[in-house]
Amino acid sequence: MSSSSSTSPPPPSSSPSVGRLNHVAIAVPDLEAAAARYRNVLGCQVGEKQDLPEHGVSVVFIDLPNTKIELLHPLGDNSPIAKFLSKNPSGGLHHLCLEVDDIQESLDFVSEKVRVLDKKPKIGAHGNPVAFLHPKDSDGVLLEMEEVKPAK
Amino acid sequence: MSSSSSTSPPPPSSSPSVGRLNHVAIAVPDLEAAAARYRNVLGCQVGEKQDLPEHGVSVVFIDLPNTKIELLHPLGDNSPIAKFLSKNPSGGLHHLCLEVDDIQESLDFVSEKVRVLDKKPKIGAHGNPVAFLHPKDSDGVLLEMEEVKPAK
Repeated sequence: MSSSSSTSPPPPSSSPSVGRLNHVAIAVPDLEAAAARYRNVLGCQVGEKQDLPEHGVSVVFIDLPNTKIELLHPLGDNSPIAKFLSKNPSGGLHHLCLEVDDIQESLDFVSEKVRVLDKKPKIGAHGNPVAFLHPKDSDGVLLEMEEVKPAK
Repeated sequence: MSSSSSTSPPPPSSSPSVGRLNHVAIAVPDLEAAAARYRNVLGCQVGEKQDLPEHGVSVVFIDLPNTKIELLHPLGDNSPIAKFLSKNPSGGLHHLCLEVDDIQESLDFVSEKVRVLDKKPKIGAHGNPVAFLHPKDSDGVLLEMEEVKPAK
């Protein structure tokens, strides 16, 4: 079944130009075990663990040919994903990150239509400006927009 | 923070060659509302609704430049996602689909290491052979493997 067989009219020109899926984030209870499973059971290319204390997480990236999976584990006392793991002790899909060209322009447009968690962009775990939308207005899915400038 | 700065050794040669993220599936309580939001608020390219009665779902694909989001809504009395939506009435991230070259070979290898929901491949919603791994052995994430032959 091809999704390209028929498509709806192009989106309004004033909406953000959402681009690539930058990553899918998964909160995991055991970062080493999860990384080993993606490497040894699924045969994925798995990066080294990175501690990001300013964001309260340790991360491991799984590099797929077209996008990344970000394994997240709490780091420190005020981790933003500690509550998620206490509700979902086995772990679970945590958020999707979509790339946009201009985070401020995108946030201005989107926040007129749906609730957002960040009124202003902040610097995300990858050093780029990001903003999160409210999952209650996105089918229960936490959506992150990340400003990614095209490579020159 | 780049994930390419340091990577672990290559995976064992006998593991499946997991490739692209084919799609991320989101279960939604209102398919038309969700599709309209992705089109009009986020500016995505959104396909037409497709009813797949043999799979118990209606689907809408969001075409991103590098992968797809699949919006899922129950169709009929025995939909495989009805239970998910009853537990998560706002909707939520439902599964990830990873491409493999050979589904039987991948399933043989993976099922020796982790629990799987399908002992044998079945034909999935896109007409390709698929198999699901058990979320309890995948950090609470339902993982689908789909055999996708490279374009000739």
